[in-house]
Amino acid sequence: MRKISFREFGLKYTLSPDEEPIINVKPGESLILEVEDASSGQIRSEVDRRDKSRIPFGNPVLGPIYIEGAEEGDAVSIYIEEINPTIGQGATYITESNDEYLTSVPILKFAGGSFPCKTRICPIRDGLVYFSEKVAFPYQPMIGTIGVAPRQEAEALSSSFMPGRHGGNMDLPDIHPGSRVIIPVFHEGALLYLGDVHAVQGDGEISGTAVEMPAEVKVKVDILKGKSVSWPRVEDEDEIIAIATSGAGRSLEDAIKIAFLELILWMEERYGIDRFDGLMLCSQIGKVRIGNLWTAAAKIQKKYLNPT
Amino acid sequence: MRKISFREFGLKYTLSPDEEPIINVKPGESLILEVEDASSGQIRSEVDRRDKSRIPFGNPVLGPIYIEGAEEGDAVSIYIEEINPTIGQGATYITESNDEYLTSVPILKFAGGSFPCKTRICPIRDGLVYFSEKVAFPYQPMIGTIGVAPRQEAEALSSSFMPGRHGGNMDLPDIHPGSRVIIPVFHEGALLYLGDVHAVQGDGEISGTAVEMPAEVKVKVDILKGKSVSWPRVEDEDEIIAIATSGAGRSLEDAIKIAFLELILWMEERYGIDRFDGLMLCSQIGKVRIGNLWTAAAKIQKKYLNPT
Amino acid sequence: MRKISFREFGLKYTLSPDEEPIINVKPGESLILEVEDASSGQIRSEVDRRDKSRIPFGNPVLGPIYIEGAEEGDAVSIYIEEINPTIGQGATYITESNDEYLTSVPILKFAGGSFPCKTRICPIRDGLVYFSEKVAFPYQPMIGTIGVAPRQEAEALSSSFMPGRHGGNMDLPDIHPGSRVIIPVFHEGALLYLGDVHAVQGDGEISGTAVEMPAEVKVKVDILKGKSVSWPRVEDEDEIIAIATSGAGRSLEDAIKIAFLELILWMEERYGIDRFDGLMLCSQIGKVRIGNLWTAAAKIQKKYLNPT
Amino acid sequence: MRKISFREFGLKYTLSPDEEPIINVKPGESLILEVEDASSGQIRSEVDRRDKSRIPFGNPVLGPIYIEGAEEGDAVSIYIEEINPTIGQGATYITESNDEYLTSVPILKFAGGSFPCKTRICPIRDGLVYFSEKVAFPYQPMIGTIGVAPRQEAEALSSSFMPGRHGGNMDLPDIHPGSRVIIPVFHEGALLYLGDVHAVQGDGEISGTAVEMPAEVKVKVDILKGKSVSWPRVEDEDEIIAIATSGAGRSLEDAIKIAFLELILWMEERYGIDRFDGLMLCSQIGKVRIGNLWTAAAKIQKKYLNPT
Repeated sequence: MRKISFREFGLKYTLSPDEEPIINVKPGESLILEVEDASSGQIRSEVDRRDKSRIPFGNPVLGPIYIEGAEEGDAVSIYIEEINPTIGQGATYITESNDEYLTSVPILKFAGGSFPCKTRICPIRDGLVYFSEKVAFPYQPMIGTIGVAPRQEAEALSSSFMPGRHGGNMDLPDIHPGSRVIIPVFHEGALLYLGDVHAVQGDGEISGTAVEMPAEVKVKVDILKGKSVSWPRVEDEDEIIAIATSGAGRSLEDAIKIAFLELILWMEERYGIDRFDGLMLCSQIGKVRIGNLWTAAAKIQKKYLNPT
Repeated sequence: MRKISFREFGLKYTLSPDEEPIINVKPGESLILEVEDASSGQIRSEVDRRDKSRIPFGNPVLGPIYIEGAEEGDAVSIYIEEINPTIGQGATYITESNDEYLTSVPILKFAGGSFPCKTRICPIRDGLVYFSEKVAFPYQPMIGTIGVAPRQEAEALSSSFMPGRHGGNMDLPDIHPGSRVIIPVFHEGALLYLGDVHAVQGDGEISGTAVEMPAEVKVKVDILKGKSVSWPRVEDEDEIIAIATSGAGRSLEDAIKIAFLELILWMEERYGIDRFDGLMLCSQIGKVRIGNLWTAAAKIQKKYLNPT
Repeated sequence: MRKISFREFGLKYTLSPDEEPIINVKPGESLILEVEDASSGQIRSEVDRRDKSRIPFGNPVLGPIYIEGAEEGDAVSIYIEEINPTIGQGATYITESNDEYLTSVPILKFAGGSFPCKTRICPIRDGLVYFSEKVAFPYQPMIGTIGVAPRQEAEALSSSFMPGRHGGNMDLPDIHPGSRVIIPVFHEGALLYLGDVHAVQGDGEISGTAVEMPAEVKVKVDILKGKSVSWPRVEDEDEIIAIATSGAGRSLEDAIKIAFLELILWMEERYGIDRFDGLMLCSQIGKVRIGNLWTAAAKIQKKYLNPT
Repeated sequence: MRKISFREFGLKYTLSPDEEPIINVKPGESLILEVEDASSGQIRSEVDRRDKSRIPFGNPVLGPIYIEGAEEGDAVSIYIEEINPTIGQGATYITESNDEYLTSVPILKFAGGSFPCKTRICPIRDGLVYFSEKVAFPYQPMIGTIGVAPRQEAEALSSSFMPGRHGGNMDLPDIHPGSRVIIPVFHEGALLYLGDVHAVQGDGEISGTAVEMPAEVKVKVDILKGKSVSWPRVEDEDEIIAIATSGAGRSLEDAIKIAFLELILWMEERYGIDRFDGLMLCSQIGKVRIGNLWTAAAKIQKKYLNPT
């Protein structure tokens, strides 16, 4: 199995159709991707601090990966096989400017008050993530940023920070080992990017950082020929999950509504459930997952969709 | 145990400090409340349709219940002991104007297109809710609307439809048997209202209706003397849950952020966890629940808060 | 001309269908309404401070006024003839909790920092409002809160603080002498309320207070029989103006979109402009006015609508 | 005076730090920029339609322009001297998918209904823009998209469609001849881009298109050495104007609040007005302008800021 690493190919900060592919893969191929963490490796001990305004920036990704045969109108399917930490630890941190994350409005700058800088190094061992010596929770690894080169227009956000129809920085805990991520293709070769792995993450990622870790991710890449989807989707053993993001006049409420409509159309297409019945069904047993505060997912358990 | 019923006390459509209490209870007393469903009883068969603009309106509540000794600066605690359907069924329905629920913007009126009217009667038996003959899911009853008479100012929304700091129509599945709901008191006697019971409900209640059912609810009412809380809270066996709502310039993102800050202050106050550590902790293992699209809850499992 | 005053009829804090009318008027009648200011008269000098949590609350209104012959399906038209200050001054103020207005998220409570308490008494004379000895701006009086008793359901917000389809606290500078305000009727007699007069107000009323003043307002009240409107409208000599508010899952973006669609349907109905042409026209010469941060108005100049 | 044209340098669809500058200019230099319209020149007659998913994409820009001596920590000042149409006409159009612009939620796809395709060619002559033979309004040209290469992280949206701290597609009518636009610099040379000129545009650009025209824009470019600003600003003869955009968890309400706080800090810095007085002042005479539905500007007239 081929392995590609940021050590060879560097850190990228955009999902762009204009970059040279770092590797070509064939549909069906499995790969190991070694990615740096969201701090670009700057936080390895509790005295380390992020300088957000300088290179290396935050949220680096590895890519683009050219998938042979993928073209506009197809979707790519990325099956997440494994996610393993590479240095046995992750880190979570808040900074003096974390108020900007919590309010958007620079009110502390205006009226005083401050956030502390804090870094916690979190050892990962025996299936646990150690937040402190006394508090540990299950290792539940996930991929924060996965996406393709976006179209260069309305939805074309090529920063590795901004998600959209092309995927990107969705910070959705449902993208974990055992999940298949389906993303529309906008450019020849799809041009896949991946990074920002978390050992564990809460809904909303409310401080702005999860337990960020450098990792090896094993994925299997496929093409869904002629599978036209509007937004990213995820499927795991139990659920089907539709994703939408806010932005450009789309409120978070709209993102939730779009995600449900996408989910319902998927239910109709795959299971033959009339869309208005699907709407009523989602109103009873649908779930909403907030990734980061600009990404919403609508979910339903498959066991209720195809009873025999 | 005393039982009070809408059959005797009628349907109310506001949570108001100006209404005469229907009953006085002492702290510690358990009660059975018989409430009508959110359709005010208009939907009992699949040919029934809601006329939303006429009496009986939607979302009736039972109350106000005067809790002896409650006064401003206290909180009330309502422990949900049981929720039982009274007619063995519930109903869920969409109407021709459901687009207004899904988009807010009257675009179908503008550009054509339409929603069907659909009603589904859902029998409830053997711990299951039958969406159809083939599809059934677990009976997971919850209270959609629970609150007290609001302050008559900024947050004073007295419609039974609008939630706020006083609780109200939050449609939060976490308010189920085994939950304790904590709500700030704004008026002498607290003036509690309750209604809008669901046999099951999805996050976001995306069609606008859950499986709405008339029900008997057994609650135990208490006062938390001098317990000043800003927003409603819920606690069950596993989790503590803080709630906030959007409205009046508060976006849904703000509601999520407020709920997390309230949760973190609760963690600090009860468990002695420094608030900035609490923020970092919530970013790893906090959960977000969307009730209806204007109610957000932030949650954390208690087992991670007090390890010994 | 009859004059009714808060001195006789008191301060109300809700727009409610359940209150006894204070006066009956006939369509076509002009009235003088004497209203208290938004501080309920508590701020008369620069050392005065608002206690927001006690009676008298903020934003009192005068009403309800029963308009003979008005019934559901009609609209009322309130023509604003004059607005005059009653004590020759207004007041604007910020408080220690003004951060809540600017951010919604209680971040100063969380991380420290503070707002000062400040009150400015603003003399009004010779057509000017004196913000200070050196800074004065034109007296541009407006009505902050005008509305009818709401329906008691979805949109039924009866606090004097919350606007909706029934009008209410919209804080829209376009409601000034020379404006006609059109509001749908939900109850027999319409049940009109009015208060919260400003000597001048900026868009967004960003500190939360304008130059609040007790005032006499001269209005002429009429019924538009069978005139069914969904949301409040305003017309003055130059413009027609459609209003919508956020809330209950309606984002501020949605309010702007709704206001434009309402405006376009009005243009079609009155001027015979095809709605899609109207949409294109508004995209060139439509204006948006933000009242408070949860009220949006879409406007267009009449001179472009009916050229001969 | 040098003239640079899209005819020589092509159409760009991103604001990117990675592109080769098309020209170097010295601070103080005036330039003529010839730019294509937002349809990339595809709409020249009323039978023309946009194909939004293919090259040429929408919203092309001309750039990047390297400004000698500009570096991070500076701001650039672009004074708009003139805007002239190059083909004597502009175009405005709606498409079958315009519902997506008005609701975000794909409800017409879900429930039927449709938008027509419509194109209007609008001749521009004698200071008027002809919407039709009978309806004309004043020629009020403005620049829809002006910005620099963004930082490659949090705010780094390099699509020509998305605005941010680096400016970009703000669609703000206040950027007109006689305005000075001030934008923070993130990269050496600033890397200025410009395009998307409108002959006239309404607030909110509610159909998604203004009267889009190819144009020649005469600008004078300067550097404000060491002038650190957080967001773009505009100044014209009468007003100072601060801009902020929604996105990534910033609601539109937040954008308005940020714009006001930026404006108030500017008032403090330039005019010595205490920030809390500035807040109170903006609450009386501040104005809000909505550009597109994700851009807000807060404005105040200079005549009230420095009375002598």
